[in-house]
Amino acid sequence: MRSPTGRFGATAGSDRICSRGLASRVMSADEAAALIGPDSTIGMSGFTGAGYPKAVPAALAARIKEVHESGRPFTVSVWTGASTAPELDGLLAAADGIDLRMPYQSDPASRAKINSGEMDYLDLHLSHVAQVVWEGFFGHLDVALVEVAGITEAGELIPSSSVGNNKTWLDLADRVILEVNSWQPIELEGMHDIYYGTALPPHRKPIELVGPADRIGVPYLRCDPDKVVAVVPTHAPDRNTAFNAPDDDTVKIAGHVLEFLDHEVRHGRLPRTLLPLQSGVGNIANAVLLGLDEGSFQPLTAYTEVIQDAMLQLLRTRTLQVASATAFSLSEASEEELRANIGDYRERIVLRPQEISNHPEIVRRLGCLAMNGMIEADIYGNINSTHVMGSRIQNGIGGSGDFARNAYISIFVSSSIAKHGAISCIVPMASHVDHTEHDVHVIATEQGLADLRGLPPRRRAQQIIDRCAHPDYRDALRDYFERAIATAPGKQTPHKLDEALSWHTRYLSHGTMRA
Amino acid sequence: MRSPTGRFGATAGSDRICSRGLASRVMSADEAAALIGPDSTIGMSGFTGAGYPKAVPAALAARIKEVHESGRPFTVSVWTGASTAPELDGLLAAADGIDLRMPYQSDPASRAKINSGEMDYLDLHLSHVAQVVWEGFFGHLDVALVEVAGITEAGELIPSSSVGNNKTWLDLADRVILEVNSWQPIELEGMHDIYYGTALPPHRKPIELVGPADRIGVPYLRCDPDKVVAVVPTHAPDRNTAFNAPDDDTVKIAGHVLEFLDHEVRHGRLPRTLLPLQSGVGNIANAVLLGLDEGSFQPLTAYTEVIQDAMLQLLRTRTLQVASATAFSLSEASEEELRANIGDYRERIVLRPQEISNHPEIVRRLGCLAMNGMIEADIYGNINSTHVMGSRIQNGIGGSGDFARNAYISIFVSSSIAKHGAISCIVPMASHVDHTEHDVHVIATEQGLADLRGLPPRRRAQQIIDRCAHPDYRDALRDYFERAIATAPGKQTPHKLDEALSWHTRYLSHGTMRA
Repeated sequence: MRSPTGRFGATAGSDRICSRGLASRVMSADEAAALIGPDSTIGMSGFTGAGYPKAVPAALAARIKEVHESGRPFTVSVWTGASTAPELDGLLAAADGIDLRMPYQSDPASRAKINSGEMDYLDLHLSHVAQVVWEGFFGHLDVALVEVAGITEAGELIPSSSVGNNKTWLDLADRVILEVNSWQPIELEGMHDIYYGTALPPHRKPIELVGPADRIGVPYLRCDPDKVVAVVPTHAPDRNTAFNAPDDDTVKIAGHVLEFLDHEVRHGRLPRTLLPLQSGVGNIANAVLLGLDEGSFQPLTAYTEVIQDAMLQLLRTRTLQVASATAFSLSEASEEELRANIGDYRERIVLRPQEISNHPEIVRRLGCLAMNGMIEADIYGNINSTHVMGSRIQNGIGGSGDFARNAYISIFVSSSIAKHGAISCIVPMASHVDHTEHDVHVIATEQGLADLRGLPPRRRAQQIIDRCAHPDYRDALRDYFERAIATAPGKQTPHKLDEALSWHTRYLSHGTMRA
Repeated sequence: MRSPTGRFGATAGSDRICSRGLASRVMSADEAAALIGPDSTIGMSGFTGAGYPKAVPAALAARIKEVHESGRPFTVSVWTGASTAPELDGLLAAADGIDLRMPYQSDPASRAKINSGEMDYLDLHLSHVAQVVWEGFFGHLDVALVEVAGITEAGELIPSSSVGNNKTWLDLADRVILEVNSWQPIELEGMHDIYYGTALPPHRKPIELVGPADRIGVPYLRCDPDKVVAVVPTHAPDRNTAFNAPDDDTVKIAGHVLEFLDHEVRHGRLPRTLLPLQSGVGNIANAVLLGLDEGSFQPLTAYTEVIQDAMLQLLRTRTLQVASATAFSLSEASEEELRANIGDYRERIVLRPQEISNHPEIVRRLGCLAMNGMIEADIYGNINSTHVMGSRIQNGIGGSGDFARNAYISIFVSSSIAKHGAISCIVPMASHVDHTEHDVHVIATEQGLADLRGLPPRRRAQQIIDRCAHPDYRDALRDYFERAIATAPGKQTPHKLDEALSWHTRYLSHGTMRA
């Protein structure tokens, strides 16, 4: 599975830059940032708080601030894998340094700028990013700014704790800036599987991956050394938030999901070892995974975007045999566990480019069980994953569409209420739709689980109201539904359009969805 | 590519039932219909007005009517490939004989029953149907009722003018009723490619199809002869409506799309021979195809659902080299053209099961250029393909989601107004969403074309309003958009939720969306 042992360890030790040519391009973060001009488009590494460049973005933000103070404009476009951390998104947003951000972010400063209309934000399916950039209409990529764990003698790049779109940025950018982060365990070497077989149509071939553990590429990122204009050594930790310990609600939601999976296994519709799990990042997903660790489904596999704490625990207890992802998202404690047993984990974890970890072809083939969070669901099963009250972006669609659309079973989870009950997460009509009724199979809240498969819309509404809505909102939902049936000009999906969004407008004007 | 010639022609001549065993089960449509009991679930052939059973549904509808007249209940669930014709959907709906219909219909009688709430209707992605039925939660399939063009000596079934889900119905049903329609040209033999390599996960393998012309299966449908309880000879034509000749609007829309394709070719973003075309059925799609016949892109290929008149014309003129689909949808004149030159067409047309013609893996790999109609688009690029005024089903999502979600470029087309201007097809907020902002690349109306790729929501809105909206509605849309920006609690996708659906409610109360 891995490359010959001889190749690994080539860069072990303190010096992570074993290529002589590239070692000659070592410089400070400030010097590297000075190579980035206004209006540049920069493809940066980073997926969740893992593997993002730690030093150059801060230096660039400082430079942008200086230029702004002198009265001149300076913004850049920032493309990444997904979200990053305050040292990247936060600082550049605070410096008003970002013109266009894509394809995902979850930073408070950045979110504020987007929602105030000061920053343009493109919210894309994560599996599509590489394709659309290669396609060309996103324009030219000036700089790739990529964190790596080391550089081999031959100049190959050892990826760090996320892969994201790094392959694409390195291939497409005119110039490359590398951050070599010695905080990243050098033993990551060999964990990655970088697939170089993608192409634009009509030159595409089947991706010959049939199991989550399959390796179809090489463990290194390639990069034309002539394009590398700077190499910046760093020693700085990834920054991921720890999850909350499961509370009553998340434990209840997890219980409903686990009971559903058990039910499917008993009815012969899922194998005893389930199918490859995909799990969004968050407290509920974490609780479901922890619940699986106590369950009887073993050994499991995961084909997902991110390896978070609970997934690492499942790997440790061997409930999870293998996990494929594009990034880690680990708390400090889990990070230590990873380091302590990295030799074992390296055999059972595969980190891939996000175009492969989220690829529709693979997600469909493997039959992923997709579990993602949501902001709200409507009574017919349309899901809003991105916009609070229809207008305000929360984070973005991320990979949820990649998985939900092609999953074997697509599950969405949320508490039934938010803001201490002022918001019902089950509403008459979603104020924004990211996953349509056609792509949503199961909805679970702490109240219960609605299995929507095979149900026409009106029967879906009954299930969702009865099983998922909070009791405080159930009667009002029933009332809406019944009056919609009575008055709608068509009874396939009855709505009263003059009231459909009234719960949201009531919240906006009165601070609560309650009548 | 084709099977050895020796095998073909085994059933040529007037007698289409060459298997002795199956010939012994010949009976009348009434006798066959008598084998279908109340509460049966029936998997029927048929995709558009092609290849549906012509005799047994009518006999069944008559039987149901009789039973109803005697005061007893009798309904069945009807699963098909997609829409069929009045002889199937119309008669069974009129007899109140359908309990649940899936996955697509376009029949007026059937639509009326659905919208009055008398018939349950499940509107599914067409590529998902086989998978979800195999998965098991849709319940048991009692009867497969499938039209074929003939039966070979060895008992293999020669498919007729559509393939749809026939493979799945024949494999899964307890009992099989075959209609052998001698109206269908026997020379269809060899045109089909039935892929038997699908499986449920975790047993799925890559589908090794890399071009629209590739054949990866066999030309016949298999069927366990012991399951065949009836064989009904018929001689009846498919029933497809002819398209209208392109009018001013459709010619203009086609012109915009062709100009866009030309632009993409000139910018090196599409090859000169484009990429495999997918085209929804309808007058606009037909006009675009006819426009391509006069254009300079040649030779083209198609990987689509349905071969309609214009596509056959393109094959005739050799603008189109090959076309892959799951069904024909031909006017009488085109049907004659097909018959006159079927030897040539058989080499250049491949008819596949709809799980393959619409498969996300293949659509993504080939990089299809998807072009589908819509009911309305909102200013941010969300598309409603299914529900008039949010509640009333028109037809269904059909294959549009299969293609749009995984297409290389996904284009939606419509006239900018409907009902003589009382309806604007560009609205502040879609009253139902089938294709989200994440999946819609291009929108075209007779007014112009908006290329939404790479644009954040507010810039999308400007494009859509400026280029696609009808002048009569443009100011009102701008006014909504500006006031939404001014007042929305977040400016990523600004909406005024108390007004977002007011155009629809105005139409419902006053018969026009005009203020």
